[in-house]
Amino acid sequence: MRDFATAMSDRPPTQRTASYEADPEWVGRVLLLYSGGLDTSVMLHWIQERYGAEVVTLTVDLGQPAEDWDVVVGKARDLGVVDAIVVDAREEFARDYVSPAIKANALYGGGYPLFTALGRPLIAKLAVEHARAKGCDTVAHGCTGKGNDQVRIEATVATLDPELKVIAPVREWRMGREEEITYARAHGIPVKGGTEAPPYSIDDNLWGRSSEGGAIEDLNAPTPDDVFRLVTLPTEAPDEPELVRVGFERGCPVTLDGAELGLVELLERAAELGMRHGVGIVDQVEDRIVGLKIRDVYEVPAAAIILPAHRELEKLVSTIHQNNFKRALEDKWAYLCYAGLWHEPLRLDLDAYMDSANQLVTGEVAMRLYKGSATPVARSSPHALYDRSLASFGESEGEFSQAASPGFIELFTLQSRMAHRIRARASDHGRKGEGE
Amino acid sequence: MRDFATAMSDRPPTQRTASYEADPEWVGRVLLLYSGGLDTSVMLHWIQERYGAEVVTLTVDLGQPAEDWDVVVGKARDLGVVDAIVVDAREEFARDYVSPAIKANALYGGGYPLFTALGRPLIAKLAVEHARAKGCDTVAHGCTGKGNDQVRIEATVATLDPELKVIAPVREWRMGREEEITYARAHGIPVKGGTEAPPYSIDDNLWGRSSEGGAIEDLNAPTPDDVFRLVTLPTEAPDEPELVRVGFERGCPVTLDGAELGLVELLERAAELGMRHGVGIVDQVEDRIVGLKIRDVYEVPAAAIILPAHRELEKLVSTIHQNNFKRALEDKWAYLCYAGLWHEPLRLDLDAYMDSANQLVTGEVAMRLYKGSATPVARSSPHALYDRSLASFGESEGEFSQAASPGFIELFTLQSRMAHRIRARASDHGRKGEGE
Amino acid sequence: MRDFATAMSDRPPTQRTASYEADPEWVGRVLLLYSGGLDTSVMLHWIQERYGAEVVTLTVDLGQPAEDWDVVVGKARDLGVVDAIVVDAREEFARDYVSPAIKANALYGGGYPLFTALGRPLIAKLAVEHARAKGCDTVAHGCTGKGNDQVRIEATVATLDPELKVIAPVREWRMGREEEITYARAHGIPVKGGTEAPPYSIDDNLWGRSSEGGAIEDLNAPTPDDVFRLVTLPTEAPDEPELVRVGFERGCPVTLDGAELGLVELLERAAELGMRHGVGIVDQVEDRIVGLKIRDVYEVPAAAIILPAHRELEKLVSTIHQNNFKRALEDKWAYLCYAGLWHEPLRLDLDAYMDSANQLVTGEVAMRLYKGSATPVARSSPHALYDRSLASFGESEGEFSQAASPGFIELFTLQSRMAHRIRARASDHGRKGEGE
Amino acid sequence: MRDFATAMSDRPPTQRTASYEADPEWVGRVLLLYSGGLDTSVMLHWIQERYGAEVVTLTVDLGQPAEDWDVVVGKARDLGVVDAIVVDAREEFARDYVSPAIKANALYGGGYPLFTALGRPLIAKLAVEHARAKGCDTVAHGCTGKGNDQVRIEATVATLDPELKVIAPVREWRMGREEEITYARAHGIPVKGGTEAPPYSIDDNLWGRSSEGGAIEDLNAPTPDDVFRLVTLPTEAPDEPELVRVGFERGCPVTLDGAELGLVELLERAAELGMRHGVGIVDQVEDRIVGLKIRDVYEVPAAAIILPAHRELEKLVSTIHQNNFKRALEDKWAYLCYAGLWHEPLRLDLDAYMDSANQLVTGEVAMRLYKGSATPVARSSPHALYDRSLASFGESEGEFSQAASPGFIELFTLQSRMAHRIRARASDHGRKGEGE
Repeated sequence: MRDFATAMSDRPPTQRTASYEADPEWVGRVLLLYSGGLDTSVMLHWIQERYGAEVVTLTVDLGQPAEDWDVVVGKARDLGVVDAIVVDAREEFARDYVSPAIKANALYGGGYPLFTALGRPLIAKLAVEHARAKGCDTVAHGCTGKGNDQVRIEATVATLDPELKVIAPVREWRMGREEEITYARAHGIPVKGGTEAPPYSIDDNLWGRSSEGGAIEDLNAPTPDDVFRLVTLPTEAPDEPELVRVGFERGCPVTLDGAELGLVELLERAAELGMRHGVGIVDQVEDRIVGLKIRDVYEVPAAAIILPAHRELEKLVSTIHQNNFKRALEDKWAYLCYAGLWHEPLRLDLDAYMDSANQLVTGEVAMRLYKGSATPVARSSPHALYDRSLASFGESEGEFSQAASPGFIELFTLQSRMAHRIRARASDHGRKGEGE
Repeated sequence: MRDFATAMSDRPPTQRTASYEADPEWVGRVLLLYSGGLDTSVMLHWIQERYGAEVVTLTVDLGQPAEDWDVVVGKARDLGVVDAIVVDAREEFARDYVSPAIKANALYGGGYPLFTALGRPLIAKLAVEHARAKGCDTVAHGCTGKGNDQVRIEATVATLDPELKVIAPVREWRMGREEEITYARAHGIPVKGGTEAPPYSIDDNLWGRSSEGGAIEDLNAPTPDDVFRLVTLPTEAPDEPELVRVGFERGCPVTLDGAELGLVELLERAAELGMRHGVGIVDQVEDRIVGLKIRDVYEVPAAAIILPAHRELEKLVSTIHQNNFKRALEDKWAYLCYAGLWHEPLRLDLDAYMDSANQLVTGEVAMRLYKGSATPVARSSPHALYDRSLASFGESEGEFSQAASPGFIELFTLQSRMAHRIRARASDHGRKGEGE
Repeated sequence: MRDFATAMSDRPPTQRTASYEADPEWVGRVLLLYSGGLDTSVMLHWIQERYGAEVVTLTVDLGQPAEDWDVVVGKARDLGVVDAIVVDAREEFARDYVSPAIKANALYGGGYPLFTALGRPLIAKLAVEHARAKGCDTVAHGCTGKGNDQVRIEATVATLDPELKVIAPVREWRMGREEEITYARAHGIPVKGGTEAPPYSIDDNLWGRSSEGGAIEDLNAPTPDDVFRLVTLPTEAPDEPELVRVGFERGCPVTLDGAELGLVELLERAAELGMRHGVGIVDQVEDRIVGLKIRDVYEVPAAAIILPAHRELEKLVSTIHQNNFKRALEDKWAYLCYAGLWHEPLRLDLDAYMDSANQLVTGEVAMRLYKGSATPVARSSPHALYDRSLASFGESEGEFSQAASPGFIELFTLQSRMAHRIRARASDHGRKGEGE
Repeated sequence: MRDFATAMSDRPPTQRTASYEADPEWVGRVLLLYSGGLDTSVMLHWIQERYGAEVVTLTVDLGQPAEDWDVVVGKARDLGVVDAIVVDAREEFARDYVSPAIKANALYGGGYPLFTALGRPLIAKLAVEHARAKGCDTVAHGCTGKGNDQVRIEATVATLDPELKVIAPVREWRMGREEEITYARAHGIPVKGGTEAPPYSIDDNLWGRSSEGGAIEDLNAPTPDDVFRLVTLPTEAPDEPELVRVGFERGCPVTLDGAELGLVELLERAAELGMRHGVGIVDQVEDRIVGLKIRDVYEVPAAAIILPAHRELEKLVSTIHQNNFKRALEDKWAYLCYAGLWHEPLRLDLDAYMDSANQLVTGEVAMRLYKGSATPVARSSPHALYDRSLASFGESEGEFSQAASPGFIELFTLQSRMAHRIRARASDHGRKGEGE
């Protein structure tokens, strides 16, 4: 019966470990998420060559600064794509992704406002839409196998269209920088700059910018100054502090210094203010969803102004019960977003909560920007749960009944006091018992 | 039967609403928590007069800067106390109160490191000990009926010695500043400065300083500059950033720039560094435990350096599960401490957790101090859960198996994907149903 | 200056410790929450006598069984009230109070479905409405000073109409049962039964029935059989199990065994089924909000069927993330309701979450009732997140990719594994260090 | 340059998606977790044949009833193993795995007391120890690729000895029942019973028994009676209820009806009692860690008695703060255990908390067992936070100050009341605004 076991062992191993992974034989036309950089340009050609597939590129504008989309499109066309699409998704990004994050005071790991994590499900959603429109059977992205972005993109694609397959050439090919350049030169793909790798791996959009890799990987070396391309170094920021008033309506920022602005413009102006004052630098160690720790350097000039302002206003209009409870939901929201679980129903449940909790978060907070810090210094709201006459230490005590305090303290602390006595007695007995 | 109802209504109203409130007739000797200021000096005399009681004063040194204890004792003696005690409790405060707070990353309302809240149960514990030693039947404190401190002190006294009674003259007498001064002058109590009230109500110790009241009560006026007596204004801080390395062992700070220091000295030196660089200014609205909101301005130069350093180190040595879960316990710890429930058994349970979670929190974090901000810029630990070769985007992938990613993503997102499809289908049906 | 201190001490003590307590001189017309029992009948007369006030009685029907409202009204009229009102609030109670509790799987202390806690804010709301309509300045209730109900009623009255004052004669008068009966007889108030106190203190409505006091206070005596007036003793329940199918729509029960029913009728029928089978008996120790522990015996035949059915259905249509996270919000919901904080905005935020989480909770659960237990035995939903072909251990594996498992396990457990090794190494070092 | 791409595509795909997966070429001697059943017997032979490897079997006694270990060992020997080991691990299992679970009131999904989840890390730990002792390079287990057990076993093996590799033949070979029997017969492996598959997939130990698969997979069919092999059907249980008193010390059960027992014996006797009375049947839908839902039928007669008793005692000695907070940690504990993260440091942190919280959980709880239900009916503890004189509704009020209540209610509800008014005003404005 040796045959049976042999037969078993000869069964082809299942190559695909995920239901959404493309089988090479079935790849006909690929929607490639294309940035115009070396990685995705090499990838473009590689897909054409390896799969004999047609390629449509999609480039999504989420407010990453200083990109020339014409150049990107031109590059794709030169490489022989079937079509090269650019989508300005800034409004949708601000409204449907950043705004809920503000209501949720969303920070992962204490300092990361999730800009990339918020952008990925939108990019992937657009990829699905344009893949369908252009008759693609496969989506390709440039994420490695070690990061969070592969999770975010593949989760969204497989959620929105389980028929679409995914390929992730970087995860598969294991080319290094040098091999990529050799490949690029061999195939007439233009290579910017020299053969030297850029010092850091960058991602950015209107809600922030991250740098990873290179010198940053030495956790014990202070943040390298050459990381900062967005935010002015605090030491070079203006010598005068600047106050900016951020106005909110139902938890969403709507004015800067009194001027009503669309959300994209407001976030962009807040970013400019923050950049000027060196605000929003974060250097933190973080837990990736795939189990690795990573050190990230973030530049988040807009978030560093908007989020603390929002939180301070929220504290003013919310009760102690609301203020003390919401954090658990904020942390979960941030986790789901970070982990690529944007379409998880729990996120919708949390959003329902966040919308309710933000219903009265209307008012204004003044933020003081100065050489690297942004701090709330004043706040007001028509719905403030604050009554100066109640709070005052002055003679008149307003409505507050100080005579109520002893009764409150008596009952509020009753059980803790009893428990302490019982515990003290128990430990006395314990000691006596031991002593005998 | 009219008599019955009359009899009922003639029953003496229960004067005391708390079991620990002193009955005026039973007050013989009072342990007064004495600061040497106007409030407690008037109180000293008032207790002698109103109750015909003897007074012992207790003054506790928790590192509040620039106090001359001899002057305080002299003042008490001049006012005819039976005894005037000063206790240097800085070591005990640092070791048994501040150190657990550091392990718990304890902040209330996002910015308050709880210095007063941590000090009160210690002060009250010392009050109980010295009241017993000096034969006092009653403890007196100078807290108002609107604040948290009455809760903290009375809870601890009634916990540790239910036989001891408490009086809180300020809560009872309702004298204003002016009445106090009239009273003081009439009884030969020295009044520092003019009759004008000090602009703010202050409390401080080695872990921070708070200002409340006066101009601060106008929430919408930017933090007044004259509040700051401890921390240099950021605009006047040195033009050069300074790096300081904070070393921890099992979660407790033990070195500054490599120098081993006792905890009190370490916290005092950290405070000096912070003060010089304008670090640790917090202006926040906060929920008092008695139901009021209050605006506080804090100066916490030591906490602003130690706490972020501790948290960053913790992120480096703890797993994602530990990092994401601990916050809920930190918030509860901070709440219990803030609410005066120091002796609540839950605090002990939380401390057991915190001690376990800090077992490997050993290492060093470099903090960059500059014109108002203190931020982590480097970190190292012998127990770091970080492996550069794993995390690197470079060619070699170390032990990390990128091939594992598709399988991970497949199963990690499986249910969320199914749920989204079911939800989409349900809402399609819903729409169709509505359309009919 | 002895005069000053004397003057201080002569100030009338603040009699009222709560802003909503009625000043005896200002009580003109009182809305009394009236059950028709001895307590509230004595109270009725006492209020007339002590305050010289007019009384309007309000009796609210929340589905407490076997009450004859005509008798209650007659009794009030005989005692000389200005008006005697009975309101059937069962529909409102079921729809606006019990239904949200079902969506929140609301249980306090593990076993109490909060029937009284849910009823009190509604009763208090009706008290406010009728007090206004009838020109009353004060609301009176019969709660003691040791329970939760005083908190629930006074919180709601003071929330909805801060002008209305409250009196709580039982808290004030301290009459015992015997004094009440003497008082009743003296004033011609009819006393049912003998002078013996009823063995237990009871409250009930359509969502359950509680018994406290008397023999129940001996925690170590098994539940006395004579407590049970609602639910059949399990030993006397039918020998045949019965299956009942509960149908839900968006989290709310809508059918029993396929028959569509209004919520009141559905709950009443479920209660009947449960009563017959001895279902819904709970004997638990519980933490009152005023700091005491109490032992309660509950009879909750409807809740014991509906709540487990709801929870089981929810598990079927919700994701693992939803299922694991919702409990924290359920517990908070139950706490707020229990604590009398029905109008707390956090409850509204939680309800927004609960509504979202229940959006697909549509389907049917079969409950098996038998001699004291009610357990789910079958469940179905058009939105079930269950795919038999995926879950099956059989040969065909459906869509589920078993090949994905090793990759999942690799990354899902990566950091925990690293951490264990580091921890083991650290403790080895520790041991070696100690050994030297 | 076509060669390059071809070269890339010709790179051998990474076969192993997990670092711990055995490479077939490196398998020399295998430690097989062996139950004696068909699956693992076929596996035994298949490993010998496919890998040409030597096999050592390990069988672990965790109290699964009615196994004859001699028969199991004999079977393994007949199949040509190098060694066949049986380990009685019941003491270790009870002490180090079940006892912490009791302190944590550990239930997953509301009803699963985690018996298998608790057993797997112990089995895997023993596998590692014996693999090392016997010179094995690989551990083999019989779990499928769809369940939780593969995660639990592989996580522990890879944690405790990263050098050891793992093979999971069932995940790989995809033999169905029939193929297994054909294979067995062809290789002289004894096949119990006929070729028919057993109706359910079973796992058990002294803490419970699970059945999955077969008719159970039809969620909407009532629990099939033929599942139950452990627990008497409630309808066939004795007609007389039985009371059993469970005594605890620091949270761990130590007596039954006053008799001191070792933990294993105590759990076994509790199981017998429960079995007799039909206690501990659970039929629930559950979220597996790999993303599937499953329906499980559990028989947990011991857990159904011990866990509710423990929880009731805990409520009696713990404060309201402890009682309301602990559940979040219990849920996390249960999740980590369920998910195979037994060695995750967070579990140790949680255990430190649980030990602290159980320090005073000493006392006795009487459970009433009757035809399928086990409910607490009496409880006592030397550390009870219960004072009958405080709680009583009778005349004397003991130490409890009812006069404290109004003050408590005033401040406890202050902010919620203010918030309601502000919210009402805001929504009035809103309505007026809309109306204009």
